[in-house]
Amino acid sequence: MDDKRGILIVFSGPSGCGKDTVLKILKENNDNIKVSISMTTREVREEEVDGRDYYFVSEEYFVKKIADGEMLEYAQYADHYYGTPKAPVDEMLREGIDVVLEIDVQGAEKIRKIYPDAVTVFLMPPSMKALEDRLRNRGTEDEETLMHRLFIAEQEIRRANEFQYIVINDNLAEAVFDFETVVRAEKMKYSRNKNIISEVINNV
Amino acid sequence: MDDKRGILIVFSGPSGCGKDTVLKILKENNDNIKVSISMTTREVREEEVDGRDYYFVSEEYFVKKIADGEMLEYAQYADHYYGTPKAPVDEMLREGIDVVLEIDVQGAEKIRKIYPDAVTVFLMPPSMKALEDRLRNRGTEDEETLMHRLFIAEQEIRRANEFQYIVINDNLAEAVFDFETVVRAEKMKYSRNKNIISEVINNV
Repeated sequence: MDDKRGILIVFSGPSGCGKDTVLKILKENNDNIKVSISMTTREVREEEVDGRDYYFVSEEYFVKKIADGEMLEYAQYADHYYGTPKAPVDEMLREGIDVVLEIDVQGAEKIRKIYPDAVTVFLMPPSMKALEDRLRNRGTEDEETLMHRLFIAEQEIRRANEFQYIVINDNLAEAVFDFETVVRAEKMKYSRNKNIISEVINNV
Repeated sequence: MDDKRGILIVFSGPSGCGKDTVLKILKENNDNIKVSISMTTREVREEEVDGRDYYFVSEEYFVKKIADGEMLEYAQYADHYYGTPKAPVDEMLREGIDVVLEIDVQGAEKIRKIYPDAVTVFLMPPSMKALEDRLRNRGTEDEETLMHRLFIAEQEIRRANEFQYIVINDNLAEAVFDFETVVRAEKMKYSRNKNIISEVINNV
């Protein structure tokens, strides 16, 4: 009963809550789920690969893509552009692949307007304390930066109500399973299987 | 993040598609899911137990329950009343138990009006041929009754579009897992967890 078209999943959550790790396991477990690759104008870092971590492009190219309406959403941080090119997403959906867009809360809002049948999932830490511990354990930030991150995280968490599903990342394997559960349930929706009645009735 | 309140699941599908068997396994696997027990005025059969298979009551009692607005839905078949008493359902939901109402398509429509946040699931045979084989293998009906049942089943399947989720019963274990997946995903909906933001933020 799988519809041919893939499902677009908008995946958001405060920084430090484990989105990347959840997606890493999710991709390993599910051949039919792909994570959309962002485009950026910043420099490639040593461990990064073009077309795997990002599409690394020139500012001229990025600005032209925006002008041509070929970016689903984009933002500027620290003089660099970051965004989601539309064409690869549409192609994967057409091929029946489920596509995850990892995106901030502002970006999520834009995507919902373009793809009203997108599924929106918000990853939450079990508590602010757990998030603080996780950020501290990374040990990559000074106290001020950490406090600022927590402040931003709280603002983001307050917008969780804009998402359809809430996944709590208390245990990594459970969070991945919860994410998979949402995708599986969405695939059973009648609204995504409108041919099913005639298929069952005519498949004598 | 479980909300205290249980979820009401309206479960429908043509006769012979395996609803009872799915529910039997579902109950065995899930302590927190209960199947609502119908009330009837028909005679108890030998293998049946009052309060397990049905609540067996007098016609006078049943009619009074209807008059008092204490039935969620009811119907008359072959001079007997069958219906769903409201009080036990509401009590289980209040206790946080997920309640399944196995009900026909007409009944499902009534329940959705009373409980707009009910989840509706329609169980489908993979094909009319599969349904026919299943009914024939039961061997309980003559050809004419069987043809009539298939005709009714097709009418019911044409109303699958009134349900949110479609589960195909091709393989029993998979159908049960699909049903469980729907319930699990529904429990992750923000709309069923409106306290989650303040819980995460205040749980320092």
